[in-house]
Amino acid sequence: QPVPKSLPNGHHCQPMNRSIFPLSTVSPAAERIRFILGEEDDGPAPPQLFTELDELLSVDGQEMEWKETARWIKFEEKVEKGGERWSKPHVATLSLHSLFELRTCIEKGTIMLDMEASTLPQVVELITDNQIEIGQLKADLKDKVMYTLLRKHRHQTKKSNLRSLADIGKTVSSASRLFSNQENDSPTTTHRNLTSSSLNDISDKPEKDQLRNKFMKKLPRDAEASNVLVGEVDFLDSPFVAFVRLQQAVMLGALTEVPVPTRFLFILLGPKGKAKSYHEIGRAIATLMSDEVFHDIAYKAKDRQDLLAGIDEFLDEVIVLPPGEWDPAIRIEPPKSLPSSDKRKNMYAGGDSQMNGDMPHDGGHGGGGHAVGDELKKTGRFCGGLLLDIKRKAPFFVSDFTDAFHIQALSAILFIYLGTVTNAITFGGLLGDATENMQGVLESFLGTAIAGGAFCLLAGQPLTILSSTGPVLVFERLLFNFSRDNDFDYLEFRLWIGLWSAFFCLVLVATDASFLVQYFTRFTEEGFSCLISFIFIYDAFKKMLKLAHHYPINSDFKMEYITQYECLCMAPAVLGEMLFNSGALMNATWSSLTKTECLKYKGELVGKACEFVPDITLMSFILFFGTYTCSMCLKKFKTSQFFPTTVRKLISDFAIILAILIFCGVDMLVGVDTPKLIVPTEFKPTSPNRGWFVPPFGGNPWWVYLASALPALLVTILVFMDQQITAVIVNRKEHKLKKGAGYHLDLFLVAVLLVICSFMGLPWYVAATVISIAHIDSLKMETETSAPGEQPKFLGVREQRVTGVFVFILTGLSVFMSPILKFIPMPVLYGVFLYMGVASLNGVQFMDRLKLLLMPAKHQPDLVYLRHVPLRKVHLFTFIQILCLAMLWILKSTVAAIIFPVMILALVAVRKAMDYMFSQHDLSFLDDVIPEKDKKKKEDEKKKKGKRGSIDSDAEDSDYPYNENVPSIKIPMDMMEQEPFLGDKASDRDKSPSFLERHTSC
Amino acid sequence: QPVPKSLPNGHHCQPMNRSIFPLSTVSPAAERIRFILGEEDDGPAPPQLFTELDELLSVDGQEMEWKETARWIKFEEKVEKGGERWSKPHVATLSLHSLFELRTCIEKGTIMLDMEASTLPQVVELITDNQIEIGQLKADLKDKVMYTLLRKHRHQTKKSNLRSLADIGKTVSSASRLFSNQENDSPTTTHRNLTSSSLNDISDKPEKDQLRNKFMKKLPRDAEASNVLVGEVDFLDSPFVAFVRLQQAVMLGALTEVPVPTRFLFILLGPKGKAKSYHEIGRAIATLMSDEVFHDIAYKAKDRQDLLAGIDEFLDEVIVLPPGEWDPAIRIEPPKSLPSSDKRKNMYAGGDSQMNGDMPHDGGHGGGGHAVGDELKKTGRFCGGLLLDIKRKAPFFVSDFTDAFHIQALSAILFIYLGTVTNAITFGGLLGDATENMQGVLESFLGTAIAGGAFCLLAGQPLTILSSTGPVLVFERLLFNFSRDNDFDYLEFRLWIGLWSAFFCLVLVATDASFLVQYFTRFTEEGFSCLISFIFIYDAFKKMLKLAHHYPINSDFKMEYITQYECLCMAPAVLGEMLFNSGALMNATWSSLTKTECLKYKGELVGKACEFVPDITLMSFILFFGTYTCSMCLKKFKTSQFFPTTVRKLISDFAIILAILIFCGVDMLVGVDTPKLIVPTEFKPTSPNRGWFVPPFGGNPWWVYLASALPALLVTILVFMDQQITAVIVNRKEHKLKKGAGYHLDLFLVAVLLVICSFMGLPWYVAATVISIAHIDSLKMETETSAPGEQPKFLGVREQRVTGVFVFILTGLSVFMSPILKFIPMPVLYGVFLYMGVASLNGVQFMDRLKLLLMPAKHQPDLVYLRHVPLRKVHLFTFIQILCLAMLWILKSTVAAIIFPVMILALVAVRKAMDYMFSQHDLSFLDDVIPEKDKKKKEDEKKKKGKRGSIDSDAEDSDYPYNENVPSIKIPMDMMEQEPFLGDKASDRDKSPSFLERHTSC
Repeated sequence: QPVPKSLPNGHHCQPMNRSIFPLSTVSPAAERIRFILGEEDDGPAPPQLFTELDELLSVDGQEMEWKETARWIKFEEKVEKGGERWSKPHVATLSLHSLFELRTCIEKGTIMLDMEASTLPQVVELITDNQIEIGQLKADLKDKVMYTLLRKHRHQTKKSNLRSLADIGKTVSSASRLFSNQENDSPTTTHRNLTSSSLNDISDKPEKDQLRNKFMKKLPRDAEASNVLVGEVDFLDSPFVAFVRLQQAVMLGALTEVPVPTRFLFILLGPKGKAKSYHEIGRAIATLMSDEVFHDIAYKAKDRQDLLAGIDEFLDEVIVLPPGEWDPAIRIEPPKSLPSSDKRKNMYAGGDSQMNGDMPHDGGHGGGGHAVGDELKKTGRFCGGLLLDIKRKAPFFVSDFTDAFHIQALSAILFIYLGTVTNAITFGGLLGDATENMQGVLESFLGTAIAGGAFCLLAGQPLTILSSTGPVLVFERLLFNFSRDNDFDYLEFRLWIGLWSAFFCLVLVATDASFLVQYFTRFTEEGFSCLISFIFIYDAFKKMLKLAHHYPINSDFKMEYITQYECLCMAPAVLGEMLFNSGALMNATWSSLTKTECLKYKGELVGKACEFVPDITLMSFILFFGTYTCSMCLKKFKTSQFFPTTVRKLISDFAIILAILIFCGVDMLVGVDTPKLIVPTEFKPTSPNRGWFVPPFGGNPWWVYLASALPALLVTILVFMDQQITAVIVNRKEHKLKKGAGYHLDLFLVAVLLVICSFMGLPWYVAATVISIAHIDSLKMETETSAPGEQPKFLGVREQRVTGVFVFILTGLSVFMSPILKFIPMPVLYGVFLYMGVASLNGVQFMDRLKLLLMPAKHQPDLVYLRHVPLRKVHLFTFIQILCLAMLWILKSTVAAIIFPVMILALVAVRKAMDYMFSQHDLSFLDDVIPEKDKKKKEDEKKKKGKRGSIDSDAEDSDYPYNENVPSIKIPMDMMEQEPFLGDKASDRDKSPSFLERHTSC
Repeated sequence: QPVPKSLPNGHHCQPMNRSIFPLSTVSPAAERIRFILGEEDDGPAPPQLFTELDELLSVDGQEMEWKETARWIKFEEKVEKGGERWSKPHVATLSLHSLFELRTCIEKGTIMLDMEASTLPQVVELITDNQIEIGQLKADLKDKVMYTLLRKHRHQTKKSNLRSLADIGKTVSSASRLFSNQENDSPTTTHRNLTSSSLNDISDKPEKDQLRNKFMKKLPRDAEASNVLVGEVDFLDSPFVAFVRLQQAVMLGALTEVPVPTRFLFILLGPKGKAKSYHEIGRAIATLMSDEVFHDIAYKAKDRQDLLAGIDEFLDEVIVLPPGEWDPAIRIEPPKSLPSSDKRKNMYAGGDSQMNGDMPHDGGHGGGGHAVGDELKKTGRFCGGLLLDIKRKAPFFVSDFTDAFHIQALSAILFIYLGTVTNAITFGGLLGDATENMQGVLESFLGTAIAGGAFCLLAGQPLTILSSTGPVLVFERLLFNFSRDNDFDYLEFRLWIGLWSAFFCLVLVATDASFLVQYFTRFTEEGFSCLISFIFIYDAFKKMLKLAHHYPINSDFKMEYITQYECLCMAPAVLGEMLFNSGALMNATWSSLTKTECLKYKGELVGKACEFVPDITLMSFILFFGTYTCSMCLKKFKTSQFFPTTVRKLISDFAIILAILIFCGVDMLVGVDTPKLIVPTEFKPTSPNRGWFVPPFGGNPWWVYLASALPALLVTILVFMDQQITAVIVNRKEHKLKKGAGYHLDLFLVAVLLVICSFMGLPWYVAATVISIAHIDSLKMETETSAPGEQPKFLGVREQRVTGVFVFILTGLSVFMSPILKFIPMPVLYGVFLYMGVASLNGVQFMDRLKLLLMPAKHQPDLVYLRHVPLRKVHLFTFIQILCLAMLWILKSTVAAIIFPVMILALVAVRKAMDYMFSQHDLSFLDDVIPEKDKKKKEDEKKKKGKRGSIDSDAEDSDYPYNENVPSIKIPMDMMEQEPFLGDKASDRDKSPSFLERHTSC
């Protein structure tokens, strides 16, 4: 058997502590980096770098030129050789070989840090002189090297799609010439679109082409350039390598594609035959320069060793893909999110941000949960919460108006307006039925406008949209029936209930009762919002079926028997007999009556055609599904590849408005008399028996005023739960709201509006979950410009009061907009409702988990909680949620619907019970942890940590979800050491020697 | 300025030639690998390896156990710690550090190759003895080491989704117990689903759990295992490392998850505190073992140095991702395709497969073009091509029937049958109109059945589906009108034209004229097939509009005026007056007539309702779009994540049939009298004036028999072009057909059928492009099982005659299937046509390029031709294609439609002209190269190569598309040297020294 021998080259003889082989001291390279990065910075952070790789190239066998072949801000973009264009930005995949070659280059080449020079010839002269000095370059080659380095630079300029389309035109128009003159296709034309400039006319000012370059938009104002020049020449025998950092960043003429001053220069000239190697080394240094950590080191390095230490640090962190499992030709798309470089920096700067397990976390799947911050703390003072809310929101009041200046706001106003109006009409109609028109459509419009407008103008969370909700409707119906049966004055009775409820709500405000909101965990929130969404979807379909019922299809119709189908107005039987003699004439009169007239005169409609309405139902279904599908597709258009980003964004923002317009058009085109949106046109109470003010006394016996407090209690719970859970959903952390919530202020306003609405005999309003979510969705912001390849980030929501206020002003003015609104078919609006319901289910973890039920394990997406929670636990959690929702659904279908909001409390109870079925660890991934249980959780943690096997320290799946929002906290090393599990990794990495020292040095 | 110094550790002092620094000899490591891999293999290739990583773990602080934490076939699957399940297979991302640590392990540890042992205790004993012998292990630790290594092994067994759902049930049912007994949730239950077995009862037979493991399906029968055992123990001070290859692979009890004999063992035990490092080293060796090249080296290695050389080779090929541009926590999905490892192997074995630029290639985008193989060579002999075709196809004749046994065939039969029947009815109807029923629907059915059946039974390419085509229809119409105007006997005239055409076709067959087909390049093919697809789509809509026209909607209908809508049958005006006296009675009679009767008796239909048909049009549109959308969605269901693969495949295969059934159901549910598929129910000629045999003489003057040769020429061109271009499209290389084409045989059969159909007075048939593509699409095969993470590969098409034959037998029997078929609404079938048209555009490069026109450059996909051809050239090419198609479209809309197939020749001419507008380089990417131009192309190549700048040798984009179908050819090195460009890379890589020698050794 072979026996391990000590190899002649004997590497690994250097002490290293990260190695499993037992040797140990801290390496000088790690020390160096810690020193470089640990320096206290007085100046600003180093500016962003634009890195450009230019290669020496002979064009058409003529003079040599420097041609730009790749560039970096964060990711690599290369010039497609044949394609004459920029590639998509991609992750720069390097070979290990080129990195080691680069290391040798830095080791052996000229390194000149903080060179004082202001023109390229100056720089080049200094470098060559240095090389000659140290004997690496023969003095007689100086001129040749300088000549080569001062050749022209050609940059790949980006052309717009429009211009390249215009090019086709040109090419086509010159096609006839082309047929006779094939030369035109030679590389001369191929390079025509490259800009070129001679560096012999050196100027510090940027050239026209540089200034025109639109790529400048992608760079911050203070960006600096690093230029990498590599090429093969025939007069050199050994490589000529130089790395230069200038004292001051200067514009070196047309050296760089964009008019940005150059700070770094890397030059590599070498003998012929190794062009590919030079190219790869150029890519390696350019990738290093675009690496955040090496970038800092390059700015702060004092000597060659610092740079080498930087390369070693980079090598240490590098990710390796096995050659057999990856095709190097695949360009890797930039990832959606990147780990912060702070982690790497802090490792050396003396801290460690990998605080696994001790941080609050968001449950894994892209945020969620709501921040339990200031807003929900119990102050213990009278109205303390309310005052804090006002204090918190007041400074934003001006920006709440100025922040609205964006085209998105217009789309949001139209979209939400249509939703609100449809809702007002539907609820108005139902309320009218329930209360015999004591509250009708007009009251619904007026109430919505007043309540919604006032709320959006003054509330703590103006993104919330108020609306009538199902439970309120049920309550009004019961109330009206009770009043009628007991001969009470309905409106007055209702006024007193409203007053009492408002009083109770104000008590809740004064006592900061909204702090209870923090017991609504993800489980409760998602259960509630999913249920509301399901109801929305269900209602959309129910309305369509009702419509189909109203316009029945004659499924027995046969064209053949068309002569048999008719609907005649006949005189009533008795009357008919009486008027038998003058029958002929009378019959003619009867038959000329319209349907309404006929029924009015008690005539009878006789015939097979009477009960059926052609086309309308089918057309309605086409409009319904069409609007829904079209909205969905247009909304998704943002992620399609067609058209420029701005166009796609605009289409996506206006998706629903566009879909509505399109299908209004389709409706008009077909011309079928589908039911349209008809708003009241006159401003007066629906019922003639009431006015705009409800007198508080006189209608009912005195004890009713007191007894109203009882039903008012129910209304209070109803309002509080409905309002606050929606507020919680709106204020979710994942919406990244910056202006804070105002639970107490919201409730205060709702109470005030309760009083106003009660006095005016208008419906009561609370926050509407689905429309509020739609409102937020239509106002989402993303980063506009970013380095090529960087994903746009979700920035937050346009938090302002303008959209809401405008929506409700428009609602109030709807009375006058009837001529426009009457073109909108109801099925289109039902389609919008369906869309809203489905869209509000998006990104809800519960829905994801529902889908998991249908997926075989191997197809399930790589969700964080699936990595950490057993599948059966996940399924069990989902299962309990389904059960709860089913129970709630059954409940809301019965008269018990009024206590529906109260059932949310039941959800909270179920969630509490689940603490006994699931470990806190599992719940922390699937749900939030209930605040009271904080202590228990921590104990649980400790227990787990103790038990955790030694293999459980895999960095890639730390056992608690990584929280990107929490800033890394620098904790001194000695503190870290105390915590065994955390200290393990920290100390392990911190003391690690540099890469090459560990592996290669002797 | 700092000056390069020689570092104390002085690495890079070793000669290397791949480096840019001028030093050179061939390294011993490269020599070694060349020697290992270059050995002539008499035995079979090394078997596939299953690699399993087991780690030492104490469960609940009790005894230590080995727990499986990851496994590899090709990609890594790890056990999710919390999730208790397998992760998705992913590319194993390693750290450079762990690879170097592994290298040290192999360097210092015990290496025992070809150990003779048959049980695990034996193996362990041999290893420990060896370690003690060389002094790496104290003798008194032997028992402890052996005890540790013989601990139980727990494997992560995969459970089906069903079982995990069942688990929920269990958990729920025991929920009540859980509330009182929280202990149940402790790790004891967590591990309950892990199988465990003590190795103390050693048995060579696989255990039950092993045999039950379904993962076995993923492994070939002769697979062997490599077991990696890593763990930390408290009794060791320095790592205990061993790498063992057994002489014979043996079952080592329950060591491995699957009952597969073990060949390799890697053991790493070390002191406490480095578990993560051990884990990473274990992953590194496992990844190496699953690497194809290292796997070969491991099987063939003679000593430690061979293994080290293997690691160095691996390091040399490794792909490096910069830490700032990638998040190591992202699990990289396995790529769609991988570079062949042959490339790496051959580099050492003395060849080089990177034959850029000299190979035929497929134009880049996923294949395309058609193989110009044997099938199209001009033999020069009489009927040479036909005989070759028969010779080629005859051996497959039996398998052409046996290969059809698959559920897919059933779906294909039903789908294509419905398409064919619809086509037969449509064309039959049109032919009937054009020929005054001399050829009607029944003739169309009979002809389709006879011609199609015979063709599929005997043709060279039985995947082709025959059908009537547009040009034939136009020709028949002209012919019939001409006959009528000149008093010719239409059928006899037609018979003679058919006979002449058949004769001409046979001449074309005898002279191997089909070889001309190779001039149809991608440009021509795609132009033709796109046009036919567009016509299909256009026709589907046209039919729907015609239907809408036939069943007009009453857009003025108002429910209010329902009493005014009627349609009465009135006595004709004149008659009415005559019968005025007895008017009353007669009127009653008239009004009781049905529409047909009324019109029959010359009555008049009077009333607003007469011209309108309610619901049918709208219902038809719902069915039309519904069927289309549903087909599309169900077809795409294969790539969704829901349900197991087999279910998804089945749904996808039966997508169209399901969609048809669903919408037949919808139609029945709504009950509207939509137009249905009505097939003839009686078997007799449509026209009573003809029989089933057309007598060849007697009807026309004698000179007509000769003059028929003239129109016959046109028919011949028409048949030849239509038939052969479809054959070319069917035989495209991208369909991966294995049984070869038979252009001559196809044409021969078409000619024979022309004779038969002419004699029987049936329509003429040629290959139908869209239906043939649909036929192929419905018969596509993919690999069923593969290593986890490997993408299923498209294997080819179920080439057989059964589906075609059955389709046409069913068509013939349709006469008897009327009771079933009459439930299928025509709009549903039009929807299927729309689907076929759209689906046949899938994957056509022209469509991709059309889309590019709308995309900003940065969003364009990374298509091969975009990397190499300037965008404006691509657009110009697209633009010319659009122009050609527009011209053809205009042409086919006029009477000139009969010469439509001839215009394909015009396309070929346009394509030839394009040789003057585009370089051959560009065309080779966008199109195929025209055969004649081969020489020119090569010259062009040489010119280009000469000019090609030195930076143009980037491996990742060799300037010609890489062709995966061409087997790598081993060419001796001295031959390679002659070709400057190719030799460059080959020699460069071939002589490269091993990785570490270059970088680290002194």
